[in-house]
Amino acid sequence: MKGTNIYPIFDKTVQRSERETLLRQKGCVVWFTGLSGSGKSTLAIALERALLEKGYLCQLLDGDNIRSGINNNLGFSEEDRKENIRRIAEVAKLFVQCGVITLTAFISPTNEIRALATKIIGRENFVEVFVDTPLDICELRDVKGLYKKARAGEIKEFTGISSPFEAPVDPDLTLDTSRLSVEESVELLMNTILPKIKIKS
Amino acid sequence: MKGTNIYPIFDKTVQRSERETLLRQKGCVVWFTGLSGSGKSTLAIALERALLEKGYLCQLLDGDNIRSGINNNLGFSEEDRKENIRRIAEVAKLFVQCGVITLTAFISPTNEIRALATKIIGRENFVEVFVDTPLDICELRDVKGLYKKARAGEIKEFTGISSPFEAPVDPDLTLDTSRLSVEESVELLMNTILPKIKIKS
Repeated sequence: MKGTNIYPIFDKTVQRSERETLLRQKGCVVWFTGLSGSGKSTLAIALERALLEKGYLCQLLDGDNIRSGINNNLGFSEEDRKENIRRIAEVAKLFVQCGVITLTAFISPTNEIRALATKIIGRENFVEVFVDTPLDICELRDVKGLYKKARAGEIKEFTGISSPFEAPVDPDLTLDTSRLSVEESVELLMNTILPKIKIKS
Repeated sequence: MKGTNIYPIFDKTVQRSERETLLRQKGCVVWFTGLSGSGKSTLAIALERALLEKGYLCQLLDGDNIRSGINNNLGFSEEDRKENIRRIAEVAKLFVQCGVITLTAFISPTNEIRALATKIIGRENFVEVFVDTPLDICELRDVKGLYKKARAGEIKEFTGISSPFEAPVDPDLTLDTSRLSVEESVELLMNTILPKIKIKS
């Protein structure tokens, strides 16, 4: 077999830009932040669907695939909450290196924690979306029954009830899902994101 | 804007199979295991390059992007080594869900540790490649100067010197880089992997 050389070898690791050329898209992280029940996951799922329809490769990171997987050994202490976000940001960074449009849906309630994520991912790769649905609407929805438990004191340090949510200082987009339909929100998201992910031809 | 409905919404999370259709490939993990200096990274880098040339999207996970990132808070205790592999496997699983061909290059010296990775990733997604280069050749290469340090007792529990390497029981492919050129190894890798990642048309 020697010398047949069917696969010419280059010893340089494949770069992000090469993957982006293959995918005909630029990678980035769309970081949804907001209260429990604000609509982060709903919007992220709808956005991923809309992007797929246009041929874009996305990956959603949310509680379903993160808390049950890489972060299944973390609790809810302040230290663990920070480690939770750190790992999510590190995973998102790897996906961006792969050229993937990465959507994350986590409460991420403080400026400190979001600054940590931004620093890891890189500001140039980071699109911050503040899902600014009023607390009373989120509590009325109470999809997971968590607000009820928090009001009953069964959950300690629940964001919005017994623990603060700090509004982002300068988000790339703010959406209030009590005023906008999912379709309207997705349209605004697409307007914000498409210019960042399109490769100029 | 209401009712314009430019982006019809489906509330179902995008599935792996949909991403694979978009990418025209099936995701999997190619798990390289072997001694330090055996050639794991060299082969993974060359394989990724060869796959890219054929239009396949890959992501390499190795010490460079894992130990400096998601695993930068882990040491080398037995517990931390296990957590190191657990996190790598969880990250690889997320990439497989994204439809990406994921190449991992870590010593991963024991059957227990590789069984953990296989369990997380799923046997059906897991291609085990044993880079079975003899210890004396690895030590002769000593690219990172680690064998010298290990022999001098400066590194404790160094695989192959003061800590055992357990050969995989039933690897999908075994490659000895002291006998095969990189080109030959890549050809064997491609023969093993292409049938698993091709989407039948």
